[in-house]
Amino acid sequence: MGMTLAEKILAKASGKNEVKAGEIVWVKADIAMMHDLLGPRLIDKGFKRLGGKLFDKEKVVVVSDHCTPPATVQQADILKYTRDWAREFDLPYYYEFEGPCHQVIVEHGHVRPGRLILGTDSHTCMAGGMGAFATGIGSTEMIGVLLTGETWLKVPETIRVHWGGSIPHGVYSKDLILKTIKDIGHAGATYQALEFSGSAIRRMSLDERLVLSNMAVEAGAKTGLIEPDEAVVHFLRDRGIEDVELMQSDKDATYIRELSYDATSLEPQVACPHEIDNVHPVSAVEGQAVDQVYLGSCTNGRISDLRIAAQILKGKKVSKNIRCLVVPASQAVWMQANKEGILDVLTEAGCIVNMPSCGACGGFTSGVIGAGEVVMSSSNRNFRGRMGSASGEIYIGSPATVAATAIEGKIADPRNYIPKEVMI
Amino acid sequence: MGMTLAEKILAKASGKNEVKAGEIVWVKADIAMMHDLLGPRLIDKGFKRLGGKLFDKEKVVVVSDHCTPPATVQQADILKYTRDWAREFDLPYYYEFEGPCHQVIVEHGHVRPGRLILGTDSHTCMAGGMGAFATGIGSTEMIGVLLTGETWLKVPETIRVHWGGSIPHGVYSKDLILKTIKDIGHAGATYQALEFSGSAIRRMSLDERLVLSNMAVEAGAKTGLIEPDEAVVHFLRDRGIEDVELMQSDKDATYIRELSYDATSLEPQVACPHEIDNVHPVSAVEGQAVDQVYLGSCTNGRISDLRIAAQILKGKKVSKNIRCLVVPASQAVWMQANKEGILDVLTEAGCIVNMPSCGACGGFTSGVIGAGEVVMSSSNRNFRGRMGSASGEIYIGSPATVAATAIEGKIADPRNYIPKEVMI
Repeated sequence: MGMTLAEKILAKASGKNEVKAGEIVWVKADIAMMHDLLGPRLIDKGFKRLGGKLFDKEKVVVVSDHCTPPATVQQADILKYTRDWAREFDLPYYYEFEGPCHQVIVEHGHVRPGRLILGTDSHTCMAGGMGAFATGIGSTEMIGVLLTGETWLKVPETIRVHWGGSIPHGVYSKDLILKTIKDIGHAGATYQALEFSGSAIRRMSLDERLVLSNMAVEAGAKTGLIEPDEAVVHFLRDRGIEDVELMQSDKDATYIRELSYDATSLEPQVACPHEIDNVHPVSAVEGQAVDQVYLGSCTNGRISDLRIAAQILKGKKVSKNIRCLVVPASQAVWMQANKEGILDVLTEAGCIVNMPSCGACGGFTSGVIGAGEVVMSSSNRNFRGRMGSASGEIYIGSPATVAATAIEGKIADPRNYIPKEVMI
Repeated sequence: MGMTLAEKILAKASGKNEVKAGEIVWVKADIAMMHDLLGPRLIDKGFKRLGGKLFDKEKVVVVSDHCTPPATVQQADILKYTRDWAREFDLPYYYEFEGPCHQVIVEHGHVRPGRLILGTDSHTCMAGGMGAFATGIGSTEMIGVLLTGETWLKVPETIRVHWGGSIPHGVYSKDLILKTIKDIGHAGATYQALEFSGSAIRRMSLDERLVLSNMAVEAGAKTGLIEPDEAVVHFLRDRGIEDVELMQSDKDATYIRELSYDATSLEPQVACPHEIDNVHPVSAVEGQAVDQVYLGSCTNGRISDLRIAAQILKGKKVSKNIRCLVVPASQAVWMQANKEGILDVLTEAGCIVNMPSCGACGGFTSGVIGAGEVVMSSSNRNFRGRMGSASGEIYIGSPATVAATAIEGKIADPRNYIPKEVMI
């Protein structure tokens, strides 16, 4: 019997020729990632009590992203703690003020096909869009990983999510993943892997693929995978990385479940308060007034997202009744967007461009919402209180839906705003 | 006997031909300004108990700047309260997410020569750089102003601060005001007006003049004034404002004190922890290591400040040991700086560009410092805890000194970094 991509990577990570779903395996991590909030400050004491020697500092990546820029002395102290810790261990890969960790580790080439990536954040699964097995672990578990480079994992069953057809204009990978999560449910894939396949996926840019893998955990999944292809090879080659192994699922691999969709007929989707699987077509929620629009996050703040928003907002104005916060997914994205004139277009339209940060998405800083406020966001979670007040409401959609909503001040169908020149 | 500029404006505001320092006068406000933190949420109850009718909504300006972007639910709620209040009273002049109020009211033409401007913020005095009498008042006092448009003031004595000569390269208005405050002391001008005059002042751009008036309160002054001239006329004409009265102090006006300096021999100045009058030449503090550099605030985040920083940082890199936060003084400044390519230059050098806000300067959000951290800042205050932790240390200098310090990671003399082409 063949193996799924998830099984193949875990076989490699455990030094075996074959592993099967359900099996407990002892695995070696290729990358151990921590961020400021759930990193050094939580692990340091236990780590030092157990010896305090890193298994391989070349494989440890620390990213300060949740407390940047600090909004409180406590956040500033966490940031300082994290920075000092990285210095104490002379870490070659410490990043801060560059943006959310999941994007930063992709940009810096830490994410590669076939790697096992363990991180102290639930959205670590995003790296699966590049063909890595990536999953979030607890800070306590990270202590063991830092000391030994190893941990155990149960090999997950895999749900194959097949998206055939072509994605219509005004519809994006965010809409596909929201529809998928609606059907699976927010806990429907618990301790399973999602594997995305099909012609609609294959034609997506890496930026778009990462949206799918990023949100795998929103269905409870251990990870979300996409078979790596030439797009990944090119991306890594641009970063001087040549040795790329393109693992694929075997044709006779076993899937616990298969979902099959035709993207051609999909319309833009919106996740409504207060569950990410409370998903409806945009036509069902059009006209819902909002107070804030948020375009950003590790889910949908990449250059392709900002390009879409700029296409929609060019020459238009953000509704006077709302504010539209734009937070590029990384400093590199910020700079690329500015080179392309995108930030000029967005600010001319009335958007506010903030520095890359997890702040508003996580309700830590830089755009928290108040009592009763309604947000339309391109991020990944909409549970009560996620972005601030527990009486706030969060709608989640694609960057296009977010941009159209910014213009109207109420949830809008982006297909009404896609410029003709891109309506091929 | 003639009158000072301060006396003339208060004579006009009180409907008298002449007033004298020491006299108590009943005055009419031309502009009543509030911001989110010290505005509607504090005055609403008393205001409504006393009738709740605005004396003239055309003269009331509300700017949300301290809680933007909100870092906490409390801040988000204050922002929402302020916005809702502005809507309740159908205010024609409500601004948010545009930057610090003092800059915003200048840009929108609310500040004009001869006006009396009362605001619920200590740096309201900045408007004096345009030839207005502008001063901070308490929120409780603002209730009376909102209801009647009037309040009483004691006509202040005026200290004349004369800066003759020419400002040398690498020295800026910030250095002049720091030297002035050193000599006057942080409480040396309490309930007095500062009036800046002399050839060095006259040749300054409006941007630079506003630095002087902004910091008048740091010497305890009620306001800081500069006689308006054609530069002010041109600035207002660009905004469609033609009717500008250029009031001057009479030649035989009475000054309580006169300080006279020659700018030609001044070197860059730095205010050291923890008092703004603890000022030393940069040569005395060169080499002091810093953790953060902050280029921004209503004091020194204007376009001319960003241009200076870009000249110094172009082709250079921010020290790896520190972070350099750039916060333009307003959204208009942000957009202008981007049009000029300045934000590209600064981000290429490794700076982080944040949205306009009072956040980091006031220690509310977006760049708060942690325990023991040292900052070199272009802002206006360095008392303990101002920017975050009470064990932090704040050095204050010009944007040029800040930019040079960003390169070295320790306090540096900007004259070593001014490009030759501007060293005329």
